[in-house]
Amino acid sequence: MESAEQDVLPFWIFILNSPAIMDGWHETEIRVRYAETDKMGIVHHANYLIWFEAGRSDLCRAKGFSYKEMEENDNALMVVAESYVRYKSPAYYEDVLSVRTRVAEIRSRSIRFIYEIVRPTDEVLLAEGETLHLVTDTSKRVRQIPDSYKELLTVDDRDMAQAFPANQAPS
Amino acid sequence: MESAEQDVLPFWIFILNSPAIMDGWHETEIRVRYAETDKMGIVHHANYLIWFEAGRSDLCRAKGFSYKEMEENDNALMVVAESYVRYKSPAYYEDVLSVRTRVAEIRSRSIRFIYEIVRPTDEVLLAEGETLHLVTDTSKRVRQIPDSYKELLTVDDRDMAQAFPANQAPS
Amino acid sequence: MESAEQDVLPFWIFILNSPAIMDGWHETEIRVRYAETDKMGIVHHANYLIWFEAGRSDLCRAKGFSYKEMEENDNALMVVAESYVRYKSPAYYEDVLSVRTRVAEIRSRSIRFIYEIVRPTDEVLLAEGETLHLVTDTSKRVRQIPDSYKELLTVDDRDMAQAFPANQAPS
Amino acid sequence: MESAEQDVLPFWIFILNSPAIMDGWHETEIRVRYAETDKMGIVHHANYLIWFEAGRSDLCRAKGFSYKEMEENDNALMVVAESYVRYKSPAYYEDVLSVRTRVAEIRSRSIRFIYEIVRPTDEVLLAEGETLHLVTDTSKRVRQIPDSYKELLTVDDRDMAQAFPANQAPS
Repeated sequence: MESAEQDVLPFWIFILNSPAIMDGWHETEIRVRYAETDKMGIVHHANYLIWFEAGRSDLCRAKGFSYKEMEENDNALMVVAESYVRYKSPAYYEDVLSVRTRVAEIRSRSIRFIYEIVRPTDEVLLAEGETLHLVTDTSKRVRQIPDSYKELLTVDDRDMAQAFPANQAPS
Repeated sequence: MESAEQDVLPFWIFILNSPAIMDGWHETEIRVRYAETDKMGIVHHANYLIWFEAGRSDLCRAKGFSYKEMEENDNALMVVAESYVRYKSPAYYEDVLSVRTRVAEIRSRSIRFIYEIVRPTDEVLLAEGETLHLVTDTSKRVRQIPDSYKELLTVDDRDMAQAFPANQAPS
Repeated sequence: MESAEQDVLPFWIFILNSPAIMDGWHETEIRVRYAETDKMGIVHHANYLIWFEAGRSDLCRAKGFSYKEMEENDNALMVVAESYVRYKSPAYYEDVLSVRTRVAEIRSRSIRFIYEIVRPTDEVLLAEGETLHLVTDTSKRVRQIPDSYKELLTVDDRDMAQAFPANQAPS
Repeated sequence: MESAEQDVLPFWIFILNSPAIMDGWHETEIRVRYAETDKMGIVHHANYLIWFEAGRSDLCRAKGFSYKEMEENDNALMVVAESYVRYKSPAYYEDVLSVRTRVAEIRSRSIRFIYEIVRPTDEVLLAEGETLHLVTDTSKRVRQIPDSYKELLTVDDRDMAQAFPANQAPS
C-alpha cells in the first residue's frame, strides 16, 4: 500500500495546480455590518449586490488597475445590465465572509462576472451570482472596452467559464 | 363611418378586459431619493431589489393582508432564494416611478414574483426582474405557506405567467 | 394672583397661534421599507438621515423649485456639513410616517433645516434632528446661494427658529 | 530662551505619551464602496453612521467581547439615542479610511462613543462625531449595562473625554 500511495500525487497537489482554482477567482474579505441585517435577523438580500461590487473593484485592483481611474481617466464605465443572485444560506451580523469574484466572459463591449460568497469558518457557500456589464462612456453610450483594460481582464482559455446555468453552482 | 366604428370595439375595451394588464399587476409609486444615486449620476443597481420589495409589500396589502402580520402572527417568512434584474434604462434623482408587481407562480412552499419598473412621464421601462421566495418559519425551516395567504395570493389561470420569456429570460 | 393670571392668555394659545409652529413646516409621507429595518426589529438609525433628505427635497418642491435643477442648472450644491438626530421612539416595518421639514436659518452661504419624524396613527414623535448645509459649486468650493433660491427658501421673521439646543425638542 | 526651551519637553513628547491619545482610540480600516457614493461624486453622508457602527463593533471585539453575544446571550442592546456628525472633507470611492472610535463616557444605563474618520494617505480628518446609546433589553426597556461589559468598556480617568462641544474637534 505504501508504494501505491507513492504512485499518486496527493490530492492537494491537484488543488494547488488547478488553474480553475488558482487563476481567475479573486478573494475579498468583508465583515457583515449591523446595518446590513434586517428584521429577519439575517443580512438583507440587496447587500449581496454591494458585496459583489466590492469584489469586482478588488479584482480590478488585483489585475493591476483601478476601476475609479478607468471611469475618470479613460471615460469607460461598466454599467450593470443584469444581475442574478442565488441565496443558499443566510449570513449573520459579524460574520467574516469571502467574496470570490471572477471574469466569466469578456467581449468588445461587455463583461460578465461571476461570484461566490463563502463563510470560511464553516466552509458554507452562502450565495452565488453573476452580473453582466455594458461598457459605456460617461454619456451612457455603449463603447468598446479600451484594449489596455481588456488585456488586464482577459482570462486564458482554461479559465473561460460559462456563466452557470439555472439551478447550478458556478463552480 | 359610424357603422364601421360600431363593428370594432374601442381600444380601451381591450385594455380593460386584458387579464395580463387588469389582473395580477399591482402598481406602487416611489420617488427616487438622493441617497439612492451613485457617482455615475444614476440610481445604484442594488436599490431595484429594495423597490421590488416595496412593491411586494404593497401587493400583499392590496390582496388583503400585511406581510408584517404574516411574519409576526403566522410564523411564515418569505425568504428570498433568488433574484434577477435586467436594467434597461437608468433612473434619476427625483424621478417618480411605478413599481409593477405580480405573483407569477405560487406553490406549496414557494412563491415567484415578477416586476417591472416604469417611468410614467415618458413611458420608459427602466427594469424588469423576478424574485423566488421560500416560505419558512422563524427558525428558517421551509414550511407550507398557510392556506389563508395562499388563497389571497393565488391568481387564476389566465394570470399564471411564466417568468418572462425569451430575450427577457434570466439565464 | 388670580386676576393677574386672568390677564394673560394661556400658554397653549400662543402655541396654537404661533406662526413659527404653524407656518414653515412641510410634511412628506413615507412608508417604512423592510430593507430599512435591522436585526433589532426596528428601523436602523442611519435611515433617518435619508428620510430627512427626502423631506428636504420635498420641501424644495413645495417652495417652487427642484433641488435637482439647482444642482444641475445653477451650479449650487447643498453639501451636508453637520447632522444631528435624536431618536425618541422606534419606527417599525410598514409604519406610515410623516417627515416634517422646515428651514431654520438661511445665510449667504449656508442653510439649516430642522426635522421631526412623527407617526400619525398614534401621534408619537419618533425623532427630531437638524442638518447644516454649505452651498458650494460642483468643485465643492463654498459660494453664495443664488438669490432666486434664497428668496424661495427664506422664511419671514416670525418663522425664524433657532436650531434647538441639546436635550430639547425643536418646537 | 534657549535654556528655557531645554527646560520643557517638546510638544510631540506629550502627544506620544498621552494616554488620552494613545489609549482608548481604536482604529478600524474600511474601503469606500461604489454604492456608498452619490450623484455629487462623494460618499453620501448617511454612510458615516454605518462606519461609526462598524468602528463600534470592532472596538468591542478589541475590548474582548462581541456585541452580537451581548445582544443574543445577555439581553443587552445598545439602542442609539442620539447621533451627531460633522463632515469636514469629502470621502471618495476607493479611499481607504481609518475609523477611530473611543468610549467617551459610560454610565449605568448609557454609553457615549466618539469618532473620527481619517484618510491616512493624506492625513485629512474627514469627519468627527458621536453617538449616545441607551442600554435596553430586547423589549426595548432601559436596563443597567451588565457589569462584565461595563468593566470591559470602562476607560480609566485619564481617558475620560468629554464629548466635544459644538464646532470643536473631539481631540
